[in-house]
Amino acid sequence: MPQAAEVRATDADRLAALLRQRYRSDPPAAGAPWSEAIDAILDHRSARAYLPDALPEGTLELLIAAAQSAPTSSNLQAWSVVAVADPARKARLAELAGPNKQINEAPLLLVWIADLARARAIAAHYDAPGDGLDYIESFLLAALDAALAAQNAVVAADSLGLGTCYIGAIRNHPEAVAAELGLPPESVAVFGLTVGHPDPARASDVKPRLPQSTVLHRERYGAAAEPHELAAYNRALRDFQAEQNMPLTDWTEQVSRRIGTTPALKGREQLTGVLRRLGFKLL
Amino acid sequence: MPQAAEVRATDADRLAALLRQRYRSDPPAAGAPWSEAIDAILDHRSARAYLPDALPEGTLELLIAAAQSAPTSSNLQAWSVVAVADPARKARLAELAGPNKQINEAPLLLVWIADLARARAIAAHYDAPGDGLDYIESFLLAALDAALAAQNAVVAADSLGLGTCYIGAIRNHPEAVAAELGLPPESVAVFGLTVGHPDPARASDVKPRLPQSTVLHRERYGAAAEPHELAAYNRALRDFQAEQNMPLTDWTEQVSRRIGTTPALKGREQLTGVLRRLGFKLL
Repeated sequence: MPQAAEVRATDADRLAALLRQRYRSDPPAAGAPWSEAIDAILDHRSARAYLPDALPEGTLELLIAAAQSAPTSSNLQAWSVVAVADPARKARLAELAGPNKQINEAPLLLVWIADLARARAIAAHYDAPGDGLDYIESFLLAALDAALAAQNAVVAADSLGLGTCYIGAIRNHPEAVAAELGLPPESVAVFGLTVGHPDPARASDVKPRLPQSTVLHRERYGAAAEPHELAAYNRALRDFQAEQNMPLTDWTEQVSRRIGTTPALKGREQLTGVLRRLGFKLL
Repeated sequence: MPQAAEVRATDADRLAALLRQRYRSDPPAAGAPWSEAIDAILDHRSARAYLPDALPEGTLELLIAAAQSAPTSSNLQAWSVVAVADPARKARLAELAGPNKQINEAPLLLVWIADLARARAIAAHYDAPGDGLDYIESFLLAALDAALAAQNAVVAADSLGLGTCYIGAIRNHPEAVAAELGLPPESVAVFGLTVGHPDPARASDVKPRLPQSTVLHRERYGAAAEPHELAAYNRALRDFQAEQNMPLTDWTEQVSRRIGTTPALKGREQLTGVLRRLGFKLL
């Protein structure tokens, strides 16, 4: 196991700078040692613009090895991933997810699959009913497994100077995505992830996050959201928007719009029916 | 952004050793550069036995800063975390999750919350209906957000030489957990995570994973599982079990038992009803 670096003055300064970059106002006092992994994690930004360069040989395999090293519930490993590099297939998937230009730009799209098909096949081999797969719990377990795996790949990519961006819009048309990728019953794409070399001319910055006190509760959950914390975050995000030449909008207003109405879900309100048609019973 | 280390012979050797440790037979040829973050990721093992030592000052705040640096769908940040250090509360949660001895041993239990309560409060502030929150899609989004965040904390902890272990059994009794932690409606504990100093006298080893060819598909999904790959993995896992003085069981048989019947879910088959009682509509 790698040992954390000794805390040097320069490490403490770097850590403090990373925390200011992430939180802007009122960063937490995080006194623990810096490490290269923590640096890569805190410095993460989504890459939405890519150079056309292919990934170095062996990169895909290394990212998936990182993904497989993530914890998995009861070692079920209830996920799969489809690596899409073919430009025509990427273009079709880009249309289904938006449209989403960055899928075309990135040399690699990883589509992460909540996969109960493998376990179903194994149960059949043992003449077991596999009834446990029929519950919403098992779908959730598979989706969580896929997320833990994917995030390891993201950190690994960041540590190599590569860029990534999750594509939740892969859930806008899950049946069409399943047909495109030839997914078996009881498997579904839960999100995509573009991977490539970020274009330095169109680089993104670190997006500030909610004050830590908003998401971190001690011993028991306090208030869902303190008005003064939300106001501070609205200000931090507006500063970020101004720097990025983006339209200025309060975060709270963005949230309200994004979850305010059924049409704002862009088709994802049909997910229950879609999952059932893809073979998940969701009892 | 930290740059990946130059590929030195020692780095390539270390990477190859990490991949052999993770896959045993037939490791993938991952030729990309080694990095400290990738080392921490590939070398991960779950820590189920802890020393009683408290965590260094500032560690909790650093782990949550790492978690908040993870991507989050549409920047909704639809998760929270409750940090439980009180021994009496940990003991009660340990009973609800098993019982689970390691929750008592670890100095810190992080309970990760799929949290739509914050977005609901924000929608109310804008007199918006918040209808988008009523769908299974929004519950899934929140659970995925929590998983991405938590996995960042796991990698950060590993990079500091700390140990962690996910506790999926926190979903065995989600209503009692919600009462213990004072969770508001439309929030639920999706998993726990113990954090502490691993006890070197009771250290765990890296658990081998399925051959990469089983989970990684190129362009389109192939077979759910090739019999020869599953047989190879059964052998790899039996070797691991023998080294750890564990009972020898085929992985495929473990899977078949774990998902074979409804009672094997240990109460989690009731999750749909539980989530509805906790305020999620799951349309």
